[in-house]
Amino acid sequence: MRRLPKNKNFSPSGPIGIFDSGVGGLTVFKEVEKLLPQEHIVYMGDTARVPYGNKSPQTVIRFSTENALFLLKKKVKLIIVACNTSSSLALDFLQKTFNIPLIGVIDPAVEKALRVSGSHRIGVIGTSSTVNSNVYQRKIAQADPGANVYVKACPLFVPLVEEAMLSGEITESVASFYLAELKNKIDTLILGCTHYPLLKKVIASYLKDVYLVNSAREVALTTRALLEKEKLLNGRKQPGRREFYVSDEPAAFMKPARLFLGSTVDKPKIINV
Amino acid sequence: MRRLPKNKNFSPSGPIGIFDSGVGGLTVFKEVEKLLPQEHIVYMGDTARVPYGNKSPQTVIRFSTENALFLLKKKVKLIIVACNTSSSLALDFLQKTFNIPLIGVIDPAVEKALRVSGSHRIGVIGTSSTVNSNVYQRKIAQADPGANVYVKACPLFVPLVEEAMLSGEITESVASFYLAELKNKIDTLILGCTHYPLLKKVIASYLKDVYLVNSAREVALTTRALLEKEKLLNGRKQPGRREFYVSDEPAAFMKPARLFLGSTVDKPKIINV
Repeated sequence: MRRLPKNKNFSPSGPIGIFDSGVGGLTVFKEVEKLLPQEHIVYMGDTARVPYGNKSPQTVIRFSTENALFLLKKKVKLIIVACNTSSSLALDFLQKTFNIPLIGVIDPAVEKALRVSGSHRIGVIGTSSTVNSNVYQRKIAQADPGANVYVKACPLFVPLVEEAMLSGEITESVASFYLAELKNKIDTLILGCTHYPLLKKVIASYLKDVYLVNSAREVALTTRALLEKEKLLNGRKQPGRREFYVSDEPAAFMKPARLFLGSTVDKPKIINV
Repeated sequence: MRRLPKNKNFSPSGPIGIFDSGVGGLTVFKEVEKLLPQEHIVYMGDTARVPYGNKSPQTVIRFSTENALFLLKKKVKLIIVACNTSSSLALDFLQKTFNIPLIGVIDPAVEKALRVSGSHRIGVIGTSSTVNSNVYQRKIAQADPGANVYVKACPLFVPLVEEAMLSGEITESVASFYLAELKNKIDTLILGCTHYPLLKKVIASYLKDVYLVNSAREVALTTRALLEKEKLLNGRKQPGRREFYVSDEPAAFMKPARLFLGSTVDKPKIINV
């Protein structure tokens, strides 16, 4: 990939770009909107090729690069990689390739987990690709070589959320099936996939007294800090514009969007990927 | 899309093309290979964009067209659409667009179900997109207006199979969750997704005395009949060549391939989609 010409002259009036493999990144969108209401936001969900969690690093890098290029065309001033799988597998590549501030969901979650964990026995759950990437393990070890990290891939959690089975016997059985090996070992658990916060109740009831880290709020805080540092905060007073783009049929985005956002989204537009 | 020039001069020595959204179509590959060992076969699995079952008709048609075009470049003499979602949403379009014999998995399954059902009370399970397409309902009604059809989307079945959870408590709970409304209503059930035959035991134990229709064998029989009719059967005596193409990393294809095929596949090659 050709390196784009050096150009750090992003405009504070430009939008924040957020991309995700699909609809899950709306949890991040929601927190960014809450913390930075005056900012314009462009959200892009790759709903035609979702999920990323069972795809190879090469493919996730390719798709993530295409998503970032789409956002760059929208003249964003910063890109949030809201997808854990993309953040795990593609963020380094994107940061090397593009001259734009890029924020993933891993670092904010890791920092939060290390802040709140007393025993520094930390669990991480995510998709197979995220867990196999070893990124969480590596980042936690870098920040705290004495920490113990327990990881577990939970591939059925995303389809359960997409079936809106957020509680009930089946979801509880699946949760205990995956989480049994973490029980009594950790005091903090990173929810390393945007879908997992929707299963918070079931997870919390199985892993009693474990602090659950949802990176969405942390990502919003990191975004504000970075925009401040780069003097890219939008100084306007009125609420910003929101634009939604998806690669599959927009109508199909509306129902899960309500699940993640608690509200509807304005007319998403379809793009080709 | 531009119509290709009329050209019915396919060669009997050309390969049979099979495409699927991923690995599930290997069940069809297996039956075709068993029935027509002398034929060359090119299999293409769109593993970078799998699954299709939760995608819109437009997107499934687009992906299916790209897969068919790839197989046409391999000079196939016939295309089998091994994916139920593609067969439901895209087969009509492909048949109108391309001048090549095309076989989907719906008609063979419907014909078999109507042959074996005594009561003509037939169940169909599949992905959300397959069920919402109404194709099975329409085709059964056309062939037998008196038949009663009961359909049910089972979105968790594919992820369960991909987790290799082919039996056990969780899989049994999910099966009864989905199939409760079919129980005691049907004597025949069409397994309308290539993954579902792997859950045959669990489904059969919940729906006792219901005949389960797996279209793979029927598709192979239809393929042989069509090749015979079109005088396109390969007359050679030695076993044919097999080629596998995938759109995501080939290595990731090998493990599930063993699950579906009961054997390994020879070096799949990666293609860009």
